[in-house]
Amino acid sequence: MEYKINSSGTGHRYTKEEIEVVTRVMNEADPLTQGKYRNAFEEKFKEALGLDYCFAVNNATAALELAAQLCLFKPGDELIAPTHTFTSSVYPFIKKGANIRWADIDLKTRVLTAESIEKRITTKTRAILIVHLYGYLADMEEIVQLAKKHNLLIIEDVAQALGTDLNGKQAGSFGDFGIYSFHSHKNMTTLGEGGMLSVKNQTYANILPQLRHNGHTSFHYDRTDYWLPAMGNLEMPVLEGKMLWPNNYCLGEVECALGSKLLDRMHQMNAEKRSNALWFIDQLSAFPELEFHRVDSSRHNYHLLAAQVKNGMRNGLIKLLADFYKIKCDVRYYPLNRYPLYQAVGLGQADCPNTDLFFDNQICFPFEHWRSREDLNYIVNSTKDALNKLRNAG
Amino acid sequence: MEYKINSSGTGHRYTKEEIEVVTRVMNEADPLTQGKYRNAFEEKFKEALGLDYCFAVNNATAALELAAQLCLFKPGDELIAPTHTFTSSVYPFIKKGANIRWADIDLKTRVLTAESIEKRITTKTRAILIVHLYGYLADMEEIVQLAKKHNLLIIEDVAQALGTDLNGKQAGSFGDFGIYSFHSHKNMTTLGEGGMLSVKNQTYANILPQLRHNGHTSFHYDRTDYWLPAMGNLEMPVLEGKMLWPNNYCLGEVECALGSKLLDRMHQMNAEKRSNALWFIDQLSAFPELEFHRVDSSRHNYHLLAAQVKNGMRNGLIKLLADFYKIKCDVRYYPLNRYPLYQAVGLGQADCPNTDLFFDNQICFPFEHWRSREDLNYIVNSTKDALNKLRNAG
Repeated sequence: MEYKINSSGTGHRYTKEEIEVVTRVMNEADPLTQGKYRNAFEEKFKEALGLDYCFAVNNATAALELAAQLCLFKPGDELIAPTHTFTSSVYPFIKKGANIRWADIDLKTRVLTAESIEKRITTKTRAILIVHLYGYLADMEEIVQLAKKHNLLIIEDVAQALGTDLNGKQAGSFGDFGIYSFHSHKNMTTLGEGGMLSVKNQTYANILPQLRHNGHTSFHYDRTDYWLPAMGNLEMPVLEGKMLWPNNYCLGEVECALGSKLLDRMHQMNAEKRSNALWFIDQLSAFPELEFHRVDSSRHNYHLLAAQVKNGMRNGLIKLLADFYKIKCDVRYYPLNRYPLYQAVGLGQADCPNTDLFFDNQICFPFEHWRSREDLNYIVNSTKDALNKLRNAG
Repeated sequence: MEYKINSSGTGHRYTKEEIEVVTRVMNEADPLTQGKYRNAFEEKFKEALGLDYCFAVNNATAALELAAQLCLFKPGDELIAPTHTFTSSVYPFIKKGANIRWADIDLKTRVLTAESIEKRITTKTRAILIVHLYGYLADMEEIVQLAKKHNLLIIEDVAQALGTDLNGKQAGSFGDFGIYSFHSHKNMTTLGEGGMLSVKNQTYANILPQLRHNGHTSFHYDRTDYWLPAMGNLEMPVLEGKMLWPNNYCLGEVECALGSKLLDRMHQMNAEKRSNALWFIDQLSAFPELEFHRVDSSRHNYHLLAAQVKNGMRNGLIKLLADFYKIKCDVRYYPLNRYPLYQAVGLGQADCPNTDLFFDNQICFPFEHWRSREDLNYIVNSTKDALNKLRNAG
């Protein structure tokens, strides 16, 4: 089908200045990976978000794989996680030995709450995975209290919520691990792929360079000659006496330089999206069939603009928007327990009624940063028309 | 120290046209990852090298991790590998359960031979890892015969030997797996990080898209509505009845478009390096203290220009070149069994006398594609001077 408003895989456009950064670094950087631009990006990111230690990686899944390694799951250890998220949030933890306990979202905020998490805590719980889905920062103050009480690690998946804050404290700075994504869809993208891992614990920070880059390290003694016994050393990263095999998750210098540059307008892009979202939501306020999550603060960056459609009208609305108005909407995120991949490892049952209700009635409107107000206006007016038609038909 | 000729981390420079590809794709690509540029790169790579199935990945280590997964090592299964290689060639296979049997290099070619491999074959041998180190394509005709006889898988690590051939057949097209690197140091680099995996077996090719990208797949039935039951599906990749956890190893569209463009001058860059290498070697032909591997054919691309230094003069030569002539040479590749990382898992003993002899007397001259003939001339003349001084001092 030819859409007038198609779905898109790019979250924002690049400015002339951002493209110039890329061409400059292509010409100047030596080496083109693991050099000064990576160090500068990590430092600027850390400062911008009030973090302790930051490590640029080649995608957010890599950051999650690293966090999962560092959790040191013992047989039987459990991770509490939502089913309503992208698959990469969860499967790295299963690979590293965690048993998953699915927790339900809040129907209004679409993220986990301290209450929904607490229901899943057992004596085997080791960690909690919080996903600030759609760009909304979960109630980390309460969740941190809960985690402290039960001595649990917190992994914050900030892939969609970069730059959001709760009472001035940035998403990702509450937990033991912060996971950031610079994927093509995201609020800022380092050429389509990229990510960042932040950690609070210095012990983690000490071994992360090795874990990220093949175990590379320096010799632990002064060398008279730079090539003896070799150019560099390799050591097995060890945490609490346990050997952790290294990986290669490096992000290139061009991407890092671009990431640094994009940080300069990250908050501005978030503000523009939030402004568009509030306008969009308010335009549709006469339609109680659509239930948005309206948050007029920097706690929400509206990475995605999702609504719950009432009265069983969801499929009809998407179909009408697609077929008649040529607007392609999405639905996200298929509860992980419904996928064959998770069913294959015994995770097909979840007992998450809010997630099921929300997903089965959800619509995501096309809402990238680069969408014009004209396009958004067309989507709003088409949605009004469509809902009126569905009311009359119903 | 201030060097006149420093070591460098970039293998080649970008042309104006290559930079234009990057800026164009930054502006045009939607999405910025896993789109048409990836498909085109894989197709062009496959055609250029005469391969069966190609998969772009975010670095060569990722390609090795995937190959290691697909080998399906059972407890006790062995991989024969050189110690004289970069660490990423080997450790992914240990992570996936292989027992490593170290094999020695040939002193002249610095790569494994069928003979050196055969010495390590046992009833438990499952696979052979061949690394075409320095850019020289090992004798794959003999090695393929040996592997057939013993029913072994072959992994060709072509990270340094892209574009080389043996009797017209390209490096990477002999084995079950071909591993290619587009890292900053390499003959062609996709912005510092990038790689490719080629496979011969269609069964591998069928599940590689899932293994590379989080298990993503399509629904196995026709859907009336594009969003029902979800936008896409996730399945556990399965090989010979065994579940293989997926990964996220995607390479961005900008890098893929650049890779396609760079393929246009890959053979030319190789020819230019080979021409420089042969000139360099011949300039020093009056110095038997330096033993180069001289190959005047497309079987060698001279990714690196390495020599064995005779008469115990290696350390003196490097030191003199560094201190007096301000030329920074390298030594590569520290035998893996000497690193603490490999010693930590019981792989500290290797019985590879050629490797030890070669490494302990080896020098790598600065030899990136962008080095000017003037610089190379300075290195040649300084080396002649230095060797004369060392002769007189000896």
